[in-house]
Amino acid sequence: MKKRNIFVRNTPLDEALKKWRQALEQMPGAGDRTETIRVDDSLGRVTAGPVFARFSSPHYNGAAMDGIAVRFNDLAGASEARPVRLSPDSFAFVNTGNAMPPGFDGVVMIEDVHLTEDGWAELTAPATPWQHVRTIGEDIVATELILPAGHVIRPIDMGAMLATGIAEVAVHRIPEVLVIPTGSELVQPDGNLDQALRSPGKIIEFNSRILAGYLATWGARARRSPVVADNPEDLRRAVREAVSRHDLVVLNAGASAGSRDYTARILEELGTVLVHGVAIKPGKPVILAMVDSTPVIGLPGYPVSAVLTLDLFVRDLIYTFQGREPKKRDRVTALLSRPVASKMGVDEFVRMTLGKVGDKLMATPAGKGAGAVMSLVRADALLTIGAGSEGIGAGEEVEVELLRPLSQVQSTLVFIGSHDNILDIMANELHRQRPVIRISSAHVGSMGGITAIRRNEAHLAGTHLLDEESGEYNIPFIRRFLADVPLLLINLAHRQQGLLVAPGNPRGISGIHDLAHSDLIFINRQRGAGTRLLTDKVLRREKIDPAAIRGYGNEEYTHMNVAAAVAGGSADAGMGILAAANALGLEFIPVAEERYDLIILKRFMEDEKIMAVLQLIRYNRNFQNKVLALGGYDLRDCGKVMYEQ
Amino acid sequence: MKKRNIFVRNTPLDEALKKWRQALEQMPGAGDRTETIRVDDSLGRVTAGPVFARFSSPHYNGAAMDGIAVRFNDLAGASEARPVRLSPDSFAFVNTGNAMPPGFDGVVMIEDVHLTEDGWAELTAPATPWQHVRTIGEDIVATELILPAGHVIRPIDMGAMLATGIAEVAVHRIPEVLVIPTGSELVQPDGNLDQALRSPGKIIEFNSRILAGYLATWGARARRSPVVADNPEDLRRAVREAVSRHDLVVLNAGASAGSRDYTARILEELGTVLVHGVAIKPGKPVILAMVDSTPVIGLPGYPVSAVLTLDLFVRDLIYTFQGREPKKRDRVTALLSRPVASKMGVDEFVRMTLGKVGDKLMATPAGKGAGAVMSLVRADALLTIGAGSEGIGAGEEVEVELLRPLSQVQSTLVFIGSHDNILDIMANELHRQRPVIRISSAHVGSMGGITAIRRNEAHLAGTHLLDEESGEYNIPFIRRFLADVPLLLINLAHRQQGLLVAPGNPRGISGIHDLAHSDLIFINRQRGAGTRLLTDKVLRREKIDPAAIRGYGNEEYTHMNVAAAVAGGSADAGMGILAAANALGLEFIPVAEERYDLIILKRFMEDEKIMAVLQLIRYNRNFQNKVLALGGYDLRDCGKVMYEQ
Repeated sequence: MKKRNIFVRNTPLDEALKKWRQALEQMPGAGDRTETIRVDDSLGRVTAGPVFARFSSPHYNGAAMDGIAVRFNDLAGASEARPVRLSPDSFAFVNTGNAMPPGFDGVVMIEDVHLTEDGWAELTAPATPWQHVRTIGEDIVATELILPAGHVIRPIDMGAMLATGIAEVAVHRIPEVLVIPTGSELVQPDGNLDQALRSPGKIIEFNSRILAGYLATWGARARRSPVVADNPEDLRRAVREAVSRHDLVVLNAGASAGSRDYTARILEELGTVLVHGVAIKPGKPVILAMVDSTPVIGLPGYPVSAVLTLDLFVRDLIYTFQGREPKKRDRVTALLSRPVASKMGVDEFVRMTLGKVGDKLMATPAGKGAGAVMSLVRADALLTIGAGSEGIGAGEEVEVELLRPLSQVQSTLVFIGSHDNILDIMANELHRQRPVIRISSAHVGSMGGITAIRRNEAHLAGTHLLDEESGEYNIPFIRRFLADVPLLLINLAHRQQGLLVAPGNPRGISGIHDLAHSDLIFINRQRGAGTRLLTDKVLRREKIDPAAIRGYGNEEYTHMNVAAAVAGGSADAGMGILAAANALGLEFIPVAEERYDLIILKRFMEDEKIMAVLQLIRYNRNFQNKVLALGGYDLRDCGKVMYEQ
Repeated sequence: MKKRNIFVRNTPLDEALKKWRQALEQMPGAGDRTETIRVDDSLGRVTAGPVFARFSSPHYNGAAMDGIAVRFNDLAGASEARPVRLSPDSFAFVNTGNAMPPGFDGVVMIEDVHLTEDGWAELTAPATPWQHVRTIGEDIVATELILPAGHVIRPIDMGAMLATGIAEVAVHRIPEVLVIPTGSELVQPDGNLDQALRSPGKIIEFNSRILAGYLATWGARARRSPVVADNPEDLRRAVREAVSRHDLVVLNAGASAGSRDYTARILEELGTVLVHGVAIKPGKPVILAMVDSTPVIGLPGYPVSAVLTLDLFVRDLIYTFQGREPKKRDRVTALLSRPVASKMGVDEFVRMTLGKVGDKLMATPAGKGAGAVMSLVRADALLTIGAGSEGIGAGEEVEVELLRPLSQVQSTLVFIGSHDNILDIMANELHRQRPVIRISSAHVGSMGGITAIRRNEAHLAGTHLLDEESGEYNIPFIRRFLADVPLLLINLAHRQQGLLVAPGNPRGISGIHDLAHSDLIFINRQRGAGTRLLTDKVLRREKIDPAAIRGYGNEEYTHMNVAAAVAGGSADAGMGILAAANALGLEFIPVAEERYDLIILKRFMEDEKIMAVLQLIRYNRNFQNKVLALGGYDLRDCGKVMYEQ
């Protein structure tokens, strides 16, 4: 095998979008894009032309009250003193909606009618012409405009059309889109997923679900095709068939320059590749093509790249096809909580979490990696860093596109600090009890939490920092780094820390000393993490030189990632909590019990989100039982104020 | 028939809502309200419990790049000057996503590999451990919280679940709602509507479509039942069957106290009527009941009442059932453009149109009448006037609930003034060319338009006011009422005015003089309308005393309503334009040609909405042809500035 040429170019985003739009404009015209459907089926559809009333509404003069139809002239001068008596043939009973009997021109409410035993009606007030009568066209007159072209049909519009004799309406077609997942490694999640998830190299086919989901959200009729294997013949056949029956074809994966990526070649062969490779990150290897005047887009395989390129190149197209204005996402200004680097010459899209802490709206990158589905699950907003920028510094104002309503962001409790599994339980129980409250949590270690509190970026920080000299937890660090900041330190739990090793402890590890000068690979936590301090303290105590431990420089940011590294075999041991070991079925060699506390700024103590958290951890049995079920926790001080300043 | 008791009470709204909520809380609990479905079908559903990852994602260590898998130790010290050479069995080719072959702990991108002819790989840079490898759990670690309970599932969430081995998810059920239209007068709009619309007393059954449409919009699974005739047996059977299979039953019509309204009686017999009659307007006769622990609501028959009561009593219920927070409509503050009266003791809901004119957001009642479907079609917002208020004065600030996005309101051109059919064509053509621009038009006559311009409530006023003394149109009125206001008067059209009479002119009317001292009924336009001035001028010219004309006091607000009154037989003649006569197939007896102009404030001449209107009327052939096709128009001065000050 030779080093191959890489065909993926770096077309600037503007240029790629321009080429794409130009090609789309040359597609079959509006005539093909409309259809006439029953009004009954028209909810949410967009009128293709103006809709005019065929009949008036009401289409007859009808009683607007239950009562009697009268001639208003007959009642002239009627009063309590001199009632008018109408003979049975000079009035008629009517109910609301009844047509007015011929010759009558007013209705008297039944409450105001006195009927005598001989069937006459006695009335004590005069009437005005057409009183309590809905006259023809009172609401809509035939030929009047009901709906303009380009109007999204609401339930009430359906009523207005039917009321005026319109049973069918011309609307823009809904685009038919086929999403074709390609790749021999893909496994359909139809049966039991466990087998696939125990087979390295197999990937559950979920991208097409995500993509079809977004297409449906934007209004398209999106279908998913079966997985097409990685060979040119199958792919060629699939594309040929798809373009003949769809308004847009989305190919997923096969867009990068890997050895099995035939997509670009096949699209070039069947039609025209407009763009292959755009100067964006993530999403660079996207392909924009036209085959038989049907647009075909090849999206990168990584979920985040696929979603972002679908959003960039397909969203507006789907709206426009339906005759709708593309929906613009709301934008807000936020402060960047940490610097974000970016490559010159590339438009970079960064998933952000947002949090309103006090009066500041803070934006924090939600996580890296194009494969990180969870970073998109957690993201509140999208930050675009233009091709001309090398990045943005911490504390700078940025404008971000909202992926969630701002109201949801504003009711989010921002937790920054050390990770603990209790936080998941807290987030869920809180959401269950008070659905408007969300917890956004960023796991950057204990010192990261203290820093966030100092910068007013978090409501709550989780910390388990051991001061070597005093042997005291957290308080010395608060005195050093948060002096003069009015706050409370509240205990969440005491928990076990120890070495996580593979099931059965195959390497026979008995303690951290076994790691020194051996071929065992350690997986460490990041600098500043409480667990890292604990590790370093133990190393010093046991007089072990960190350089003697293989993998000491490899850092993970959460307990669970450390556990996963051990479970996956990329490391033989890591320091972590029992809960993480239990979760992945690892063995646990206890090292120490430590204290995990929450730092809360005093000025947030009246915040209903904080009050809800304290209520939960102090009094909620359900929460406490779930925590104890994790193992390795002691809640003897849970909710107790450990320190105040 | 005797005067009957009216059973409908006036329960205060708060009390009615409280009783309803209490009853709903006693319905079957959450256990009945959840179901487990495939993740593939879960888009938009709400999680019934927290969702935790079953497997880590990625579930294996995989290549993150196309290239070769290596042992990072092997590359120690590699440089351009001293490349490292790897034998074919000490590296392995990998593509993105491939599982790392056992024993390898890093990937080198294919671009950085030089392959020699004997199959060795030459590398010129060292590697870091696990470089370009996606390690197990990098995205999600098994047991981590993916989604909390009560989360609305988005496409990306589906991906996250499938990626971590979750193929099924417990969600809140979607409420099954049956809408039962009742009433023997109802005709299903299945076939040709024309016959029904020519039969007085027949009503097209469209309410159930509107109601089911809103229910669907809020997330319910709403079905419509066939129409149930007005008899107790059928209604009893329908309700009994419905409650056994639905989570909510909506009965429409049959809720007032008319002679055929059995609903309340039958609900009382089958279950419990909680409330019958609420102190609201519109919507008073609503019924809230429980039958076999299924809530049943009887809505009033008028569409606007039905929609408003559905919104008041059912919307939140539908959201809550699905585990969602009820959606709150946005609220804005606006200035009332005219006074709105309200009855003490009744919560009144007034449909409003909004318009941003300059920097003021003006709110104007959208039309009266519970049967007025178009008033809801046109409404931008809803104003609630509490039971303690007798009304609100013009110019006062009110808070309204938005029925349309504010952005749409802000891009609305506000037209207030005399009605002309050209306005419909203008609205539609404008919307077609510039979909963001809407026209909201209030037809309050020429003087109403001038008043609105003086008050800064309209961008544009339409006027055709004849000054008797000078014989000049519009300008004398502007000088009198809009002195010192910088404006332009621009002609829209010259048009025919005349008497509209029934087809074939059965009463042999030859001119307005025939109306005096006869039994012919005239239908007039409102005071201040240009057509009213013209009528009065003709009467004076012909020396006819208005009091001698029957119906002179009956006023309609638009040409089309005058035409409809004549077409419907409630009047024999009315003054109007040829277009209105043509629209309803009436005969037209010309009286005069008049000039219809637009008043535009100079400060809005740069407004893009006004510029678009001028562009349209001056240069758009399509628009002009459509106007001429109406008949009775002369466009010789269309778009011309007639006067400037």
